[in-house]
Amino acid sequence: MNIKGFSSAAVSAGIRYTGRLDLGLIYSTTPAVTAGVFTTNQVKAAPLLIDMERLKQGRAQAILVNSGCANACTGAQGMEAALATSALLSSSLGIPDEMVLVSSTGVIGEQLNVDAFSSSMDRLVAELDEEKFEEVAHAIMTTDTVSKTVYRTVTIGEHEVNFMGMAKGAGMIMPNMATMLSFVVTDAQISFPELQESLRQATDRTFNRITVDGDTSTNDMVIAMANGTAANEWIDEENPAGRQVFQDTLEDVLKELALKIVSDGEGASKCITVRVCGAKEETEAEQMARTVANSNLVKTAFFGEDANWGRIIAAMGRSGVRFDPDRVDIAFGDVVLVRDGLAVGKEAEAAASEILKQKNIAVRIDLKDGAGCEEIYTCDFSLDYVRINADYRS
Amino acid sequence: MNIKGFSSAAVSAGIRYTGRLDLGLIYSTTPAVTAGVFTTNQVKAAPLLIDMERLKQGRAQAILVNSGCANACTGAQGMEAALATSALLSSSLGIPDEMVLVSSTGVIGEQLNVDAFSSSMDRLVAELDEEKFEEVAHAIMTTDTVSKTVYRTVTIGEHEVNFMGMAKGAGMIMPNMATMLSFVVTDAQISFPELQESLRQATDRTFNRITVDGDTSTNDMVIAMANGTAANEWIDEENPAGRQVFQDTLEDVLKELALKIVSDGEGASKCITVRVCGAKEETEAEQMARTVANSNLVKTAFFGEDANWGRIIAAMGRSGVRFDPDRVDIAFGDVVLVRDGLAVGKEAEAAASEILKQKNIAVRIDLKDGAGCEEIYTCDFSLDYVRINADYRS
Repeated sequence: MNIKGFSSAAVSAGIRYTGRLDLGLIYSTTPAVTAGVFTTNQVKAAPLLIDMERLKQGRAQAILVNSGCANACTGAQGMEAALATSALLSSSLGIPDEMVLVSSTGVIGEQLNVDAFSSSMDRLVAELDEEKFEEVAHAIMTTDTVSKTVYRTVTIGEHEVNFMGMAKGAGMIMPNMATMLSFVVTDAQISFPELQESLRQATDRTFNRITVDGDTSTNDMVIAMANGTAANEWIDEENPAGRQVFQDTLEDVLKELALKIVSDGEGASKCITVRVCGAKEETEAEQMARTVANSNLVKTAFFGEDANWGRIIAAMGRSGVRFDPDRVDIAFGDVVLVRDGLAVGKEAEAAASEILKQKNIAVRIDLKDGAGCEEIYTCDFSLDYVRINADYRS
Repeated sequence: MNIKGFSSAAVSAGIRYTGRLDLGLIYSTTPAVTAGVFTTNQVKAAPLLIDMERLKQGRAQAILVNSGCANACTGAQGMEAALATSALLSSSLGIPDEMVLVSSTGVIGEQLNVDAFSSSMDRLVAELDEEKFEEVAHAIMTTDTVSKTVYRTVTIGEHEVNFMGMAKGAGMIMPNMATMLSFVVTDAQISFPELQESLRQATDRTFNRITVDGDTSTNDMVIAMANGTAANEWIDEENPAGRQVFQDTLEDVLKELALKIVSDGEGASKCITVRVCGAKEETEAEQMARTVANSNLVKTAFFGEDANWGRIIAAMGRSGVRFDPDRVDIAFGDVVLVRDGLAVGKEAEAAASEILKQKNIAVRIDLKDGAGCEEIYTCDFSLDYVRINADYRS
């Protein structure tokens, strides 16, 4: 599927390894309204600092993204390198430098190989094509095992509007915001303040609800570009119907990407939704769900397909949320394992063990203390997580 | 070594498995001044609720401890069971019920097998002997691979004073307070308020500085019994010299036990000390050291013997502590890897890789922003951690 006015390209530039796609480009023929959300980590990689500054204008035309090197903790040299790659691209494309956003993922602390960019830039631009989003999604993979793209077409007013979203994830996944790279392009016509707010809300409800390992990266960003080619009525406060469709669709795209990231979490064999209800406040429900979803003991028990709810209640108990342990219910799928703080029995545990053999598992916790309800998405914690992360750089 | 006036015993009671020591007893012939520190987890096992109540009197004579069942999340039935085991022991020993403390470790959510206690109690009491601390230390092991005891003899005034400490740990190790069981007995003569304060301080500086996996248990406790048999001058504010020796020795005992717990952390192959200096405040140094020490990505890199300092700086960046990334130094042992936020180079990395092959590794972080300095002790994160925790109950 193509998104009117956007094209993309990817090449093998040899930034860290040879023979794999590692440099991608997303390009809008006209300047697009562009918004971004960036990592909350205090340590921010050079490309993020550049993009945060450039996005104050709310416009961009190109995203240049590489894997293999994060260009984080690289000081003045890293900043110069990022600016140099941006200049190489803007010159090849014949657009102003400020219209280029740069993005990197890979190992922290190593300097960017600018030569790999300069020797590949003309080839990259020459490859531009309307149908190459999949190649870019491949080029940004690190320990991801599959590329992640989502496409949607909706109608706003009488106009067809298209969305393409891509993401990479795998490790260092506990947003807020952070966690991975994601790029969304749409031909919708929308104002910058609307797009920024819409992206912030959608990110909060999707990427900020997933966790793989509780670590937050230095490089992660979500960027949304909207070039207006669909010619729909402007999306703003005077167009509430259009705004709703846009918001729902963006959230839908990001949610699907977020779940793809979790299910491709490093070493993941299962997707787990931790839903906490009956909390006094939604924020408390979220806090508890997040603590459970980040517990190594809970996640290894899921890997072992062990209905070890004791680890869940122990994690709840250290979450900082006040609750009455004697009123808690815990269910796996439809099987209630714990009622009013007590084990239901061996039969329930046997039924729960069957549920744990599935790929997608819902953990439902009810505190019976209010109307607050939230969910967090995570994966299990496997031997492969350790293998991948013990070996990552070698 | 024996501690005057204390005896102990352990038997195989078949609480969960047969043929292994799983029931232990520590006994003081006279009521001992006794203080305790208990888990901060909101979900507290039945034995903790009993002990917290009984220790208000500041006296106890016996600790009955079992492995195989945590007696946590077991409701009224669990509370009755814990009280029943206490009654069995007080009757066998011929002491008041309130003089008995109970302690359990093992799986959460299963009811305690009281029959195993009743059929073993007379045998347990008959086994009491001055030289059996090692057997008790074995009886409290769960996924521990070695038992953990520490002995000390010091002079207070003109009197020889003896200490024995034991602990179990292995998983669910991130105190505050919490984390494991530890029992300390001493023949020192000390008032209850002094002992309680001394234990709280020593725990804070030792057990509360270790982390294996960031999880905090429902059952954990440190209990110190002092029966006064050494007949030293009372330790209180009028005896500052004696007080100092007592405090130093207690801290020394707990520190050694804490390090034993870390080095026997589930699946651990290395002990890691994360020291943060140059923070504005000690609390900030601790917060950052704790975040780094709990990062799965950092811990798997240590397992892989990979000098991946980028993961350390990424964890620092999400710790919530403000710092200037461009001023940070990071060293492994004596090898400075990062100076002023930048990689020192390949040679330093090669030297750091040699250090990573050692069993004990010191990570030193300097923020150059103040005098705050703290350290946290942890272990690496190995394949065996996942194996152990995926299989624990089966």
